[in-house]
Amino acid sequence: MSTTIKYEPRELKVVGTRPIRHDGVDKVTGRARYGADFDLPGQLIGKVLRSPHAHARIRSIDVSAALALPGVKAVVTRDDFAEMPEEYAAAGEIVVNFYDVTRNVMAREKALYDGHAVAAVAATSEAIAKQALKLIKVDYEVLPHVIDVLEAMKPDAPVLHEHQYTQLVTPKPDKPSNVAKRLEFKRGDVEAGFRQADLVVEREFNTKPVHQGYIEPQACLASYSEDGQADLWTSTQGHFVFRAQCAKLLQMEVSKIRVMPTEIGGGFGGKNTVYCEPVAIALSRKAHRPVKIVMTRDEVFRATGPTSGANVRVKMGCTRDGRIIAAEAVLNYQAGAFAGSSVSPASMSAFTRYDVDHVHVVAHDVTVNRPKVAAYRAPGAPIVAFGVESVIDEMAKKLGIDPIDFRLKNAAREGTQSYYGPKLGSIGFIETLQAAKAHPNYRVPLGPNQGRGVATGFWFNAGNETSCALNINEDGTVSLVLGVVDVAGGLRTALAMIVAEELGIDVDKVRPSHSDTTELGFNFVTAGSRGTFAGGMACVVAARDAIEKLRQRAAKIREVPVDAVEWKDGRAQPIQGSAHRFAPMTLAEIAKVAGKTGGTIAGHAEINAQGAGPGFATQIVDVEVDRETGLVKVLRYTIAQDVGKAIHPAYVEGQLQGGVVQGIGWALNEEYVYGKDGRLQNPGFLDYRVPVASDVPFVDAVIVEVPNPNHPYGVRGCGEVSIIAPMAAIANAVESAIGIRICEQPLSPPRVLAAIEEAAATRKA
Amino acid sequence: MSTTIKYEPRELKVVGTRPIRHDGVDKVTGRARYGADFDLPGQLIGKVLRSPHAHARIRSIDVSAALALPGVKAVVTRDDFAEMPEEYAAAGEIVVNFYDVTRNVMAREKALYDGHAVAAVAATSEAIAKQALKLIKVDYEVLPHVIDVLEAMKPDAPVLHEHQYTQLVTPKPDKPSNVAKRLEFKRGDVEAGFRQADLVVEREFNTKPVHQGYIEPQACLASYSEDGQADLWTSTQGHFVFRAQCAKLLQMEVSKIRVMPTEIGGGFGGKNTVYCEPVAIALSRKAHRPVKIVMTRDEVFRATGPTSGANVRVKMGCTRDGRIIAAEAVLNYQAGAFAGSSVSPASMSAFTRYDVDHVHVVAHDVTVNRPKVAAYRAPGAPIVAFGVESVIDEMAKKLGIDPIDFRLKNAAREGTQSYYGPKLGSIGFIETLQAAKAHPNYRVPLGPNQGRGVATGFWFNAGNETSCALNINEDGTVSLVLGVVDVAGGLRTALAMIVAEELGIDVDKVRPSHSDTTELGFNFVTAGSRGTFAGGMACVVAARDAIEKLRQRAAKIREVPVDAVEWKDGRAQPIQGSAHRFAPMTLAEIAKVAGKTGGTIAGHAEINAQGAGPGFATQIVDVEVDRETGLVKVLRYTIAQDVGKAIHPAYVEGQLQGGVVQGIGWALNEEYVYGKDGRLQNPGFLDYRVPVASDVPFVDAVIVEVPNPNHPYGVRGCGEVSIIAPMAAIANAVESAIGIRICEQPLSPPRVLAAIEEAAATRKA
Repeated sequence: MSTTIKYEPRELKVVGTRPIRHDGVDKVTGRARYGADFDLPGQLIGKVLRSPHAHARIRSIDVSAALALPGVKAVVTRDDFAEMPEEYAAAGEIVVNFYDVTRNVMAREKALYDGHAVAAVAATSEAIAKQALKLIKVDYEVLPHVIDVLEAMKPDAPVLHEHQYTQLVTPKPDKPSNVAKRLEFKRGDVEAGFRQADLVVEREFNTKPVHQGYIEPQACLASYSEDGQADLWTSTQGHFVFRAQCAKLLQMEVSKIRVMPTEIGGGFGGKNTVYCEPVAIALSRKAHRPVKIVMTRDEVFRATGPTSGANVRVKMGCTRDGRIIAAEAVLNYQAGAFAGSSVSPASMSAFTRYDVDHVHVVAHDVTVNRPKVAAYRAPGAPIVAFGVESVIDEMAKKLGIDPIDFRLKNAAREGTQSYYGPKLGSIGFIETLQAAKAHPNYRVPLGPNQGRGVATGFWFNAGNETSCALNINEDGTVSLVLGVVDVAGGLRTALAMIVAEELGIDVDKVRPSHSDTTELGFNFVTAGSRGTFAGGMACVVAARDAIEKLRQRAAKIREVPVDAVEWKDGRAQPIQGSAHRFAPMTLAEIAKVAGKTGGTIAGHAEINAQGAGPGFATQIVDVEVDRETGLVKVLRYTIAQDVGKAIHPAYVEGQLQGGVVQGIGWALNEEYVYGKDGRLQNPGFLDYRVPVASDVPFVDAVIVEVPNPNHPYGVRGCGEVSIIAPMAAIANAVESAIGIRICEQPLSPPRVLAAIEEAAATRKA
Repeated sequence: MSTTIKYEPRELKVVGTRPIRHDGVDKVTGRARYGADFDLPGQLIGKVLRSPHAHARIRSIDVSAALALPGVKAVVTRDDFAEMPEEYAAAGEIVVNFYDVTRNVMAREKALYDGHAVAAVAATSEAIAKQALKLIKVDYEVLPHVIDVLEAMKPDAPVLHEHQYTQLVTPKPDKPSNVAKRLEFKRGDVEAGFRQADLVVEREFNTKPVHQGYIEPQACLASYSEDGQADLWTSTQGHFVFRAQCAKLLQMEVSKIRVMPTEIGGGFGGKNTVYCEPVAIALSRKAHRPVKIVMTRDEVFRATGPTSGANVRVKMGCTRDGRIIAAEAVLNYQAGAFAGSSVSPASMSAFTRYDVDHVHVVAHDVTVNRPKVAAYRAPGAPIVAFGVESVIDEMAKKLGIDPIDFRLKNAAREGTQSYYGPKLGSIGFIETLQAAKAHPNYRVPLGPNQGRGVATGFWFNAGNETSCALNINEDGTVSLVLGVVDVAGGLRTALAMIVAEELGIDVDKVRPSHSDTTELGFNFVTAGSRGTFAGGMACVVAARDAIEKLRQRAAKIREVPVDAVEWKDGRAQPIQGSAHRFAPMTLAEIAKVAGKTGGTIAGHAEINAQGAGPGFATQIVDVEVDRETGLVKVLRYTIAQDVGKAIHPAYVEGQLQGGVVQGIGWALNEEYVYGKDGRLQNPGFLDYRVPVASDVPFVDAVIVEVPNPNHPYGVRGCGEVSIIAPMAAIANAVESAIGIRICEQPLSPPRVLAAIEEAAATRKA
């Protein structure tokens, strides 16, 4: 069934409390097993040879010397992967094309970025494997490369893909281009709108690619048997999707691959698609032994997906009393080496927080000689929000309207028509604006060189295919089996809480765990903030399935009609008004005799969850700018986000805080630095600076709960919205502090200092 | 539901064929992972200190020196296991009492047999663990012991359990006894029956305990976390039962233990109950690190359950034309150190092959200073069948009636009233007798010192709790998840075949695998030949559940009512006579769009399978006796067994052949040899001689198929019946060869030679 379960207000006993997570002790004691923690007898170590060139045709690869090295058991190159047709599949919020995926996993005609996999070796030790990599001779024809998005869009730019003609444009282009696709969304008449406006602001913004920065590099262990069956342990956001991708790339039947999801040390969208997994299986297939690949941080930076860097132009017009009339944006997003950036969701989310009559959005998906972009928490949205919320801030400031009041005037609400399609349903944007405005942090007095910024974010959230099962054990405890990966930590507990709430038992009686790919039906990747929304809906379906059986069993034991039995407070009891009286039975009592009354009681769900509710957040940040060094210090941070319903408020707060912190990193410090040679110069956490504890204040998280009408508990999802506003909020705060609007990020000390110095020079001139 | 699905004759495409087993390649390439093949980071090695005394009070245990040894991380003794109340639970065909199980796992007041666990150590290496065992000081008060069953029944025998008074006797005994229980079954008036008989034969038989001889010693890996959750990898016939036992013994909630069944290198009933598992968890709990215990062969022989040794008296009377009128048996079975031998099923199976009006069976369950008896393939039945079938052979010979004809005259059939309770349903005993009689092997001429023996066997077979799930993957392949352990090898494939048959797809599209204990509902141990019967029924339930969903989905896609759709030949197609016409859809076509039409399609079953059908076998063996050495050589062997329906005939033949070979070992060579000190003298495969390839001829297996009316494919189960007749058949053949009826087994060369010499001496005298 395509499942939507309507929201029903009810008294809650478990949902909304803050129990300790089931997976906590294993994680803090080091027992939890991550991707690199699995080993098999006889396993080999796989290492990948990567291109040192940003763009090069691969004339030939000679692996003979490597193969001759004692201890080397297999080498794979492009010859070990089949050609793939153009075939698209969802992998989180970004769609992948198998024609590209096979080429990203192992370079085929060309190496398209520094770090692109060109060959891989399996050997009896890492040392031998590394030595073997040096013995592989690749004959490259080095080609001109392009790194920057605007450069790549120029007609004379080096073209990555000779077969790539810009899609969705008319007339059909007559020559290949790095612009893979042009998207356009229109509502009303934007030119007419601007003519009506009292104030028009237009700005151009540039951002750098940043990496998800998950603490655990990609790691997997593959074992391929002679009968064509493969076992794969891997750190993934979706083992079913990884299974599907490996099956496709290796031309295997889906049932022949069993994927065991390991604990995952962060994903944020970066582990929605395969990198080393097909390579490990291919090596194992050739070597007839298990193969383990653990990527280094250097490899993660050079060869897994960061987010897009982008160029965005935003133009908005409003009346003098602050009513937005027209909005226009052009989004140019780097896709990396293969088409498919996050520009689609970005272009649909650009103005969706506001009720604007005239909108025009054009978006370009642009290939450049960088690693293929992957999803990153609300993919693409923070970049365009940086632009839109900066322009709104400028309009509000110019009109002397409080930035929250300005947004309140224009805020989308239930029934607002979006420019990309649907009308918005019941949403809580206004409630987040009001909560932010009411927060004491909004009234803290500021000192010199300090400034306050406000920005907001919108995200769609998602549902999709989800399965789960719960087995009621003979002592009344419950084994809950989940197919949706607990990426962020906390999902397991939230889902166990939902099951406990439904069954009417304590949450510590429910033990949640993950299945591998054989044991449950298909589950989509944990992406789009769908974990608790869709997983929770599946848990409700499964729990209610079990309750139905519990009622039947109790009716049988008590010899009353099933209709006379209701499940309430964890017990089968006489339904109100029924003529049948009987002694209630607890879940444990029914479970104890389940074997004798017909077998174990279980509940199952295989659903495609529909009805995800959009999420909104309003954020306030106070910064202090050091005019001597350009350092931006974040003084205090407040986020008010509508999550629909917080199942486990502490973990929801963690999601809100986590997104903010990653947004702070994006706004202030993180960036990929490329040399003129097209090689990444900072592939490590020493030179690529994510925020550390001393960089961030405590983030005040205000949970707003406007129930999603299409979820039994009102859940919307909460994992992504929080990252959308920080880039804009911080830029707006910096502007408030120093009076300079900087439209390039990160706002690293050199860039801020340069802006200050430039402004001083301009003033002098 | 308590499930019985009636037999329905149908045309079969997959069932009855002989595909290669899904787990075959992994096993022959060494990839399959057995109990000892799992490791965790930081794991310790557990070793067990065992009593050198057959019977001794444990005054004290001093572990301080062991604990002080560097590298020793934990020591456990009786103090680490809680007292258990008398509480019984099924574990295969034998019921366990937790009061006893905890004492068998770790000696409490007394050590009750040579090899009884007294303490255990977890250390950083096996060498340190062994050294530590030597440092443990146990203060024993050595007590007199008793090994033999008849000795143990004497009033002045040393008593193992001061609290054990013979149960089920009146008046209640006034002093403790090694006789734990007296069972009695009566039908008609046996004394009157004997008075009517023309011929009465009475004999006394003695057999030795034998071990199941599984090639893989018990082995497990346990990891207990500080939050009270335990993971356990172990070689078991039933991970859910092991979970239940460990939870009970360690006083944990069931959901807190997750048991992963490893591949299992044989069980035959010997892995129905825990030995090292609770010890490993207790050590891990104390050491805060994973603990691995791999038992040695010596430990397996000394401390895991062999079958009972026994003393059996059988008296039968018949008319001169061979109609059995009365039958009487007294069964005295060793239980080992704790009550609960296989004497219950043995006493119920003794005469159940025959339609006899007057029956009297008395059985004693007797504790002795040996390891606690475990189930062994048709537990207890071969011993009593040795007696009954020997006496029948003697009667047939004395009356000059062909031994098969004699049995045909008396054979039970549908409607025969058993002496222990039920009337027999549809059975195939007569068909096996007829098949044996018709077999060419029954007419091969015999040479000097050669003899032919016939014997038969009956077994109940069983159903019980079983769960499974099947998930239809996006490419139409199927993941089949089983909770019933594939002990013998072949079960997985048989169940995959049933699913393939139901779904109408090729068997290689179905990939079967085992779940751990969290992922499915409860499954009973694989015992009582229930695997294919109950597992098959669960698979049918799950497949039909999936088919119902496939029909619904096809109806939705084709926009026709569900009633118009039938599932036939692997396709949803218009039901005959329906007005709705539509293009059929294959399983793969429906699966491909399942996500879009509502989510994965799965089928589930949690059943308590009822309606197991009794199994019967008739066996013919030809032997040659070497009068110089006493060596009995098996020349040819034939078994005709009613299996109801052979899902995979090759694996059914393997079951028939395997049981015969184990029976040959039991009949000819296997025995436990105890010294006067009560210590086992042959705890190893060099001195305990199981049959090797050169000892056994090819076993001709004739599959008889009289469908079980209470199974959708007519399955009865086939794993146990085959072992019942060999002891008797071989004894009867030896008697035919040399004219001497030997009532003690094994018929090892020394025993046969002694019998020959004794007979010669008697003749001379």
